Amino acid sequence: MLKDSMVIEMIHASKRAMGIEYAIRDVVLPARELEKQGIKVIRLNIGDPGKYDFQPPKHMKEAYCKAIMEGHNYYGASEGLPELREAVVQREKKKNGVDITPEDVRITAAVTEALQFIFGALLDPGDNILVPSPSYPPYTGLVKFYGGIPNEYLTVEENGWQPDIDDMRKRIDEKTKAIAVINPNNPTGALYEKKTIRDILDLAGEYDLPVISDEIYDLMTYEGKHISPASLTEDVPVIVMNGMSKVYFATGWRLGYFYYVDPENKLVEVREAIDRMARIRICPNTPGQFGAIAGLTGPMDYLKEYMTKLKERRDYIYNRLNEIPGISTQKPQGAFYIFPKIEERSKWKDDKEFVLDALNEAHVLFVHGSGFGKAGKWHFRIVFLPPVEILEEAMNNFEAFMKKRLGA
Amino acid sequence: MLKDSMVIEMIHASKRAMGIEYAIRDVVLPARELEKQGIKVIRLNIGDPGKYDFQPPKHMKEAYCKAIMEGHNYYGASEGLPELREAVVQREKKKNGVDITPEDVRITAAVTEALQFIFGALLDPGDNILVPSPSYPPYTGLVKFYGGIPNEYLTVEENGWQPDIDDMRKRIDEKTKAIAVINPNNPTGALYEKKTIRDILDLAGEYDLPVISDEIYDLMTYEGKHISPASLTEDVPVIVMNGMSKVYFATGWRLGYFYYVDPENKLVEVREAIDRMARIRICPNTPGQFGAIAGLTGPMDYLKEYMTKLKERRDYIYNRLNEIPGISTQKPQGAFYIFPKIEERSKWKDDKEFVLDALNEAHVLFVHGSGFGKAGKWHFRIVFLPPVEILEEAMNNFEAFMKKRLGA
Repeated sequence: MLKDSMVIEMIHASKRAMGIEYAIRDVVLPARELEKQGIKVIRLNIGDPGKYDFQPPKHMKEAYCKAIMEGHNYYGASEGLPELREAVVQREKKKNGVDITPEDVRITAAVTEALQFIFGALLDPGDNILVPSPSYPPYTGLVKFYGGIPNEYLTVEENGWQPDIDDMRKRIDEKTKAIAVINPNNPTGALYEKKTIRDILDLAGEYDLPVISDEIYDLMTYEGKHISPASLTEDVPVIVMNGMSKVYFATGWRLGYFYYVDPENKLVEVREAIDRMARIRICPNTPGQFGAIAGLTGPMDYLKEYMTKLKERRDYIYNRLNEIPGISTQKPQGAFYIFPKIEERSKWKDDKEFVLDALNEAHVLFVHGSGFGKAGKWHFRIVFLPPVEILEEAMNNFEAFMKKRLGA
Repeated sequence: MLKDSMVIEMIHASKRAMGIEYAIRDVVLPARELEKQGIKVIRLNIGDPGKYDFQPPKHMKEAYCKAIMEGHNYYGASEGLPELREAVVQREKKKNGVDITPEDVRITAAVTEALQFIFGALLDPGDNILVPSPSYPPYTGLVKFYGGIPNEYLTVEENGWQPDIDDMRKRIDEKTKAIAVINPNNPTGALYEKKTIRDILDLAGEYDLPVISDEIYDLMTYEGKHISPASLTEDVPVIVMNGMSKVYFATGWRLGYFYYVDPENKLVEVREAIDRMARIRICPNTPGQFGAIAGLTGPMDYLKEYMTKLKERRDYIYNRLNEIPGISTQKPQGAFYIFPKIEERSKWKDDKEFVLDALNEAHVLFVHGSGFGKAGKWHFRIVFLPPVEILEEAMNNFEAFMKKRLGA
C-alpha cells in the first residue's frame, strides 16, 4: 500500500495516542467488512439503548428542543449551567443522601470527559490509578494516555465479580493517586455489596486516596439497590460520576456530570486543576443541558417500563448462555451487559480469536474480554439491549457455532 | 482558610493541568466580584455571538429539533455521521476548491476538540508546534498540556498582523511537528494575504511539516476574501479546522470538523492516532449533527445580514479607539475582535494591570493581550459583537478612564 517515499517522509504520531485501544469499537471494522459483503451481523457490542427500543423520555426531548428554539445556543459557564448543577444537587440528595451545593458539581461531555478531567488532573507520568479488572476500556486507555499506569485490581468472578480488597491493598504504592470503582459494573454487570463499598472506603482512608465512583448505571439494577461511596464516606474524598447516557437513555447527547464529596477539603488543588482543564474547552453543549434538567427533575416512570423489558432480556440471555456447551456465566445484577467465560479453550488461541471466529461463522458481534483488562481474558461481553427475538436469533446462531466447534 | 491538617493531606494535582491558563475566562472572576456588588459590567471579553443579537439560522435550529424528536439520540460513528461528513465535503469544495471525501473528514466537539486530537496525536513531550503570537490561548495551553512547547512566531502589527516568515523559519528545529495558522486571526482580526499563505506552505514543504489551519472565521471578512492553504497546497499536508461556532452562530452546540488534504499520504500514522483518540470518547453530539448538516447545506443569506451589522460595529469601535489618547489600533479585516496597543505605558505595570484597572474604574471587561502570548504584551482584546449603543457606552466609559489616567 505505501510507497517507499511515503515511508521515508511519513509524519510520526505520538506514543501517547498510538497506545490507545478501545476494544468495543475496534471490533467494528471486521464486522463492517462482513456487512459490505451483504452479510447481516447481529451487533451486540455497543451499549447504546438508543439503537433499540429505548429513547430518552419525551419531556427531556421537548425541553432540549425548547431551549434550541428559544435561543439557548450561546456558550454557557465552563462548569455547566447553574440550573443544571442545582438539579444534580437535588437528584443526588434524593438518590445518595449527599449534601452538596452547585459549587461541587461540574457538567461534562458525558462520563468520558469527566474521566479526561479527573485523570488529567491527578496523574503525572509514572503515577497509577487502581482500576477494576475487568473494566470499561477508557479507564485503562485514559490513564495510559496521561502517562499513568492502570493498576488493575482483581474482581472475583465466583463471587459475582466483587472487587478483591486484599488484591487492591497489595497494589497500592507511593505512586497511587486514586481508586476507581465502576458500580454497577461494565462489563460484568456486578452490583457491589455495602460491605465491599465500606471496605474500599476504609482502604482509601488508610492510604489517603480519593475514590472515583462511576455510577452511570445507578438506577439500572435487577436485584438489590446501588450504594454509592458518597453516601457512606466520613472523611475520604469521593468523586461521583454520572450522566444522561444510560438511566436517561440519551447516549448521543454526550452529557454527564460529576461532583465532589470532600468533607476535609483535600481536593482543593485537584478541583482547581480540573477547572483549568474545563475552561480551556469553553463549555459543554448548552441547549442539551436544558434537556438534562428536565430528565433529572422530571418523572421517572419510563424507567420502570424500560427495566421490565431489560430484566426479561437479561433473564433470557442468562438462561440461554448457561445451556450452551463450553460457556458459563454469572448473572448480572445491574447495567445491560453479561460477561460469559469461555470454559472450553482448545479451539482458539485467545478470546479475541474466539470473538472473531464467532463473528465470521455465527455473524454475531461480541467484544473480546481481554479488551477489558487482564481479568477479562477468556471472556467476552454481550450487550443484551435488543428485543428477545433478536437475542434469540443471536443465541441460536451462537449455540450452533459452539456445537459445531466443539463437535457436540 | 486551610487548616494545617488539610495542607498536610492535600492531594496534589498534575503539573500538566496546573499549567493551563485561559486568559479569556480567567478575567471573568474579578468581573463577577464587581457584579456581585451590584455594579453593571460591560463584558467585551468572550467571542460569543449568541449572547447578543445573533442566532443560528432557523433552518439549523429546526433540523436539530427534528433529529431529537425523531429519535436520533443514539451514539453515532466516532468519526461523525456520514451525512455530515458528506456535507463538509461539499461545503469545502465550494469554499476552498478541495477534492476530499467523507473519509478525510472528522466531526468534533468544536475546534477545541480538533486541537486536542491533533496536538495529542502529534506531540511527544519536548516536541514543539509553531503557533502565532499573539494567538487564541488554547493553542499555547493545549500544546503545553501534552508536554509540548508552544513555539511562538511573530506576527507584525505594523503590517496588519501578518506572520513574519523569517521569524517562523528561524524557530523551526528537529523537534518541530507542525505550523499552526489562525486566519482570520483571533485575537488580531488579521486576514492573511495569498503570498503569506504561499510562503508558509513553501516553508512547511522545505521542512516536511504539516500546516494546521484554523478557519473558523473563514466567511467573516470585511475586506478581501479568506484563502486557505488547503486550496494552494501541492504536496504539503494541510489539516483544516472549522465548525459551527462562528460563521453559523452556534457556539453553544460545540460542533466542529476538520479534514485532511494530504496529497502524498504523509499523515497515515497521525490519522490512525487521531482515530484512536476519537474512538475512546465514543462520538460527538448526535442530534446536533443534523443541525450542522442543515447549516452547511442550507441558505447563507443570514450571514450577509449579520456581516452588515458586524461591519458597522467594527467601523464604530475602530474609529472610537483611534480617537482615545494613549491607544492605537490596526483595523481588523475579519472575525469580531480588535487588538489595540497601549501606547502610553507609564501608569500600569503591565497589560493585565491595565485591563483590571479599566474593569474596576470604567466597568468594561477586556482581555489582557499577554494572555494571547508574548507578542500580545501591552495590548488588549475587545470583542465588538454587541450593538453600537453598548459599544458606545463602553467606549465612552473607556475614553473617560483613559483621559483621567493620562491627565488629558
